Amino acid sequence: MIKARVIVTLKNGVLDPQGKAIEGALSALSFSGVDQVRQGKVFDIAIEHDDKAKAEADINAMCEKLLANTVIEDYKVELV
Amino acid sequence: MIKARVIVTLKNGVLDPQGKAIEGALSALSFSGVDQVRQGKVFDIAIEHDDKAKAEADINAMCEKLLANTVIEDYKVELV
Repeated sequence: MIKARVIVTLKNGVLDPQGKAIEGALSALSFSGVDQVRQGKVFDIAIEHDDKAKAEADINAMCEKLLANTVIEDYKVELV
Repeated sequence: MIKARVIVTLKNGVLDPQGKAIEGALSALSFSGVDQVRQGKVFDIAIEHDDKAKAEADINAMCEKLLANTVIEDYKVELV
């Protein structure tokens, strides 16, 4: 069993209205000093087999095909 | 300027229909060997000042009040 964590974030320069809304909400809750918030997604994936190389290749392919929109998003895969 | 990453994940035992949908989609894309997928959220927060202790306390408070629903979600704060 291999566990991996994939973190998908918007590329720099891509507008993030959700992050802006969170900034506004934090400000309304009187949190000061927040410069910027950007929201992304995290996927925790459990793979049945124990072949690390194959798991990493598979997960990169999953990101390219399904989990991330590589036009506007970056992804990072960490085996844990 | 302090940058922090907050990762919010569903607690164990909480149903994750979004993760189940991703499992189904991966299976439809012929990825085999995927045991489980769970989806969470990531927030990249930039804080204006340089006081690490205050930043960490503030971000924990933001998580408790806004970013995470602590009934069903866990959060982890990493200063980067």
